[in-house]
Amino acid sequence: MTLNAFHARLAAAAAAHDSLVCVGLDPEVERFPAQLRGRPDAILAFNRAIIDATADLVCAYKPQIAHYAAVGAEDQLQESIRYIRERAPGVPVILDSKRGDIGSTAAKYADEAFKRYGADAVTVNPYLGRDSVEPFLEWADKGIVVLCRTSNAGAREFQDLKVGDRTLYQVVAEKVAKEWNTRGNCLLVVGATYPEELADIRARTGGMTFLVPGVGAQGGDVRRAVQAGMTPAGDGLVINSSRGILYAGSGEDFAAAARRATLELRDAINAARR
Amino acid sequence: MTLNAFHARLAAAAAAHDSLVCVGLDPEVERFPAQLRGRPDAILAFNRAIIDATADLVCAYKPQIAHYAAVGAEDQLQESIRYIRERAPGVPVILDSKRGDIGSTAAKYADEAFKRYGADAVTVNPYLGRDSVEPFLEWADKGIVVLCRTSNAGAREFQDLKVGDRTLYQVVAEKVAKEWNTRGNCLLVVGATYPEELADIRARTGGMTFLVPGVGAQGGDVRRAVQAGMTPAGDGLVINSSRGILYAGSGEDFAAAARRATLELRDAINAARR
Repeated sequence: MTLNAFHARLAAAAAAHDSLVCVGLDPEVERFPAQLRGRPDAILAFNRAIIDATADLVCAYKPQIAHYAAVGAEDQLQESIRYIRERAPGVPVILDSKRGDIGSTAAKYADEAFKRYGADAVTVNPYLGRDSVEPFLEWADKGIVVLCRTSNAGAREFQDLKVGDRTLYQVVAEKVAKEWNTRGNCLLVVGATYPEELADIRARTGGMTFLVPGVGAQGGDVRRAVQAGMTPAGDGLVINSSRGILYAGSGEDFAAAARRATLELRDAINAARR
Repeated sequence: MTLNAFHARLAAAAAAHDSLVCVGLDPEVERFPAQLRGRPDAILAFNRAIIDATADLVCAYKPQIAHYAAVGAEDQLQESIRYIRERAPGVPVILDSKRGDIGSTAAKYADEAFKRYGADAVTVNPYLGRDSVEPFLEWADKGIVVLCRTSNAGAREFQDLKVGDRTLYQVVAEKVAKEWNTRGNCLLVVGATYPEELADIRARTGGMTFLVPGVGAQGGDVRRAVQAGMTPAGDGLVINSSRGILYAGSGEDFAAAARRATLELRDAINAARR
């Protein structure tokens, strides 16, 4: 199957940088190094330094929108994305907003992600069913990343419930792979913290790409996650680390520390997939 | 049980205005009357006119955040909420954002709703499980409105799946009522478009309050929804209408038309509950 524009962009960045690492841009001002705190554009300055330090090492960036919305910094999110376009022109941006609402409202959220922020992909929540995701799916050139099995401990509460002979997350995975992905623009979120579930979802969904959070601060084991989740060709994964990279250092050299952490993660992933 | 601050505020507004009507503030500039279009503050001007026209007729206002985020109008959302505080001081504001993310990020979304916008309540998505909702639940004085059975057609796709002898939405309803509501700050979203499900969830959750979307533009029958969903005392419901009120008229008299539509809905609800 021909790759859609998002998948082509992702594959090109992954190949150019020999990397499946996605850096999550989840700025928390209270964790910033002292020299940035207090600046009105602290978030943008922090993100720029992180982007400068990692632009040649990643296959994607993933800003998590709550970190901007909580402090009214939508403008700095917008500027950060603009900076990625400038500094890392081939690297796709996944807006992590996990939206989910009825169709007419979902169309507004799609506008938020794709028109306002110009993201290449967006995360969405499946609980409201297909018609709530359809306004996103209509963006055939983008990536629509559906939550399937998340990386948190509470994921078990509903996602692991047995629905006949499958769990709810298995039902979601198969729905997305077999019914929602008609335009080839769907991906799934599957947490690194559950390698068995990664392997199971891989077996159920063929070559789909997974966005995999949960390594780094959340404690997921990189080698186990990669080996459980990769396709036979050794790809199909976008492995996100946010806090483990952003806050690898807390001093003036935070960007250099972030680069080292990104390199380490990239190499650990590549060692596991080859 | 003593009502928490949100529930007390909601009950007081409902009693003062003899109303279970919530007006959804979902501004769509392309549907605004001609005299407002083109103004940079069109959304705020529209909302102010709607608030002026309905302040004495409602128990709550519910701005849906996608309608602001899609066009970068967070400031007008903030100003609209400020205007509600001034013009309708006792009326609670439910921020409809349906957020859901892992704990550390959920805390940021709670900050967005309660610190940034000063909302009295917020809607949340249960798919990620309790730890994703806990940072909201910790706000004991607020209302945490958990999606249970939504009003859209696609709701059936996952929410109606059979989990043992219950459906997924029944499992969510009972979890929230029996486990998540320890602080008395939980509510449920149950669509007016499914009266049988409303009755079923009422039976499973005792006196919990339901936020009920789906009357008006979505076609839910008011009388059937009220009679299916109300408590024996004739309350426990917050019935939302957005488009049916906001766009009841499209000319210069849109605010007067919105007032008439609100009055009609209030009276239809009250006729059904008494």
